[in-house]
Parts: sequence; C-alpha cells; structure tokens
Amino acid sequence: MTYDIQVFVTLKEGVLDPQGNAVQTSLTRLGYDGVQNVRIGKKMDIRIESEPEKVESDVREMCEKLLANPVIEDYEYTIEEALSV
Amino acid sequence: MTYDIQVFVTLKEGVLDPQGNAVQTSLTRLGYDGVQNVRIGKKMDIRIESEPEKVESDVREMCEKLLANPVIEDYEYTIEEALSV
Repeated sequence: MTYDIQVFVTLKEGVLDPQGNAVQTSLTRLGYDGVQNVRIGKKMDIRIESEPEKVESDVREMCEKLLANPVIEDYEYTIEEALSV
Repeated sequence: MTYDIQVFVTLKEGVLDPQGNAVQTSLTRLGYDGVQNVRIGKKMDIRIESEPEKVESDVREMCEKLLANPVIEDYEYTIEEALSV
C-alpha cells in the first residue's frame, strides 16, 4: 500500500533559532512590527510503499535515525493512504 | 489581538529538490527501500499582534515579500488566535 507521510521537525523549546531571529528582524524592517516571535522548522512530504501494520513504526524509526536530531529537535507526523497512485 | 500563524513553504511541482533527493538516498541506504519520493519544505511558526480585519492580508504580504520565493515556491498558512498569552 502507498502512503503519503508528512513529517514536521521543529526546534525544541529553549533552543536558539538564529534563522527565526533573522526572519523576525527582516519582517520588522519591512514594517510588520507586530511580529513577536518566529521559529523555523522543516516540513517533509514522503511517499512510501509499506504495510498498514508497519508504516507507523517505519516513520518513527526514520525520524529517530535521520529526519530529526533528537537532541535539539522534536518531530510530529501524519500518515495518509495515498489517493493518486 | 495575538495570533499564532503557521506558514508552510514548499517547492513548486517540477522544481528539483536536491535536499529531498539526498534524504531519499539516505533513507534507502538505511533500509527503507519503500520510499518513493521525498520533498523538503519549511514550516514557520509566527506569533503576531494584529487586528482581525488585517491579520490575513499581513500574513499574505509577509509570504509574498519575504517568506516564500514566488518563482519556485508555493505557500500555505493557518491563522489561529493565540491561546496562551
């Protein structure tokens, strides 16, 4: 079965986010002075062939082994059966 | 009013994604050979002080001016009133 996975990787609370700070500074310079905080993370769209009983453990393992750095990042994911195959 | 905005920036269909290809290669090497496609994008969490009638146009403008490159990227966003203020 084919699945469409979305993985969201974000920096843990308290971890400095220089990229987010840079974007915040730029937005303020552009006149959006209401911006209070910006955090930048990654969104990964993965299409994978797997089995119903295996797909979630596969996704979790991929996150733990490669997609997220467990020391400084958190991850979330959604799993959906692919529509257009 | 304080809002929590999520912006998702992804590469347009057909635009090469070397980062996604690199992740796909690594996942395959780790034994996840069911992986068919990987696309990497950005997820931005933005807290902003704004007004109900202004917040959406602000977010759209920020995306068009800075957060997304309209030539190669698409963007989506969600807007929610901030809970914990």
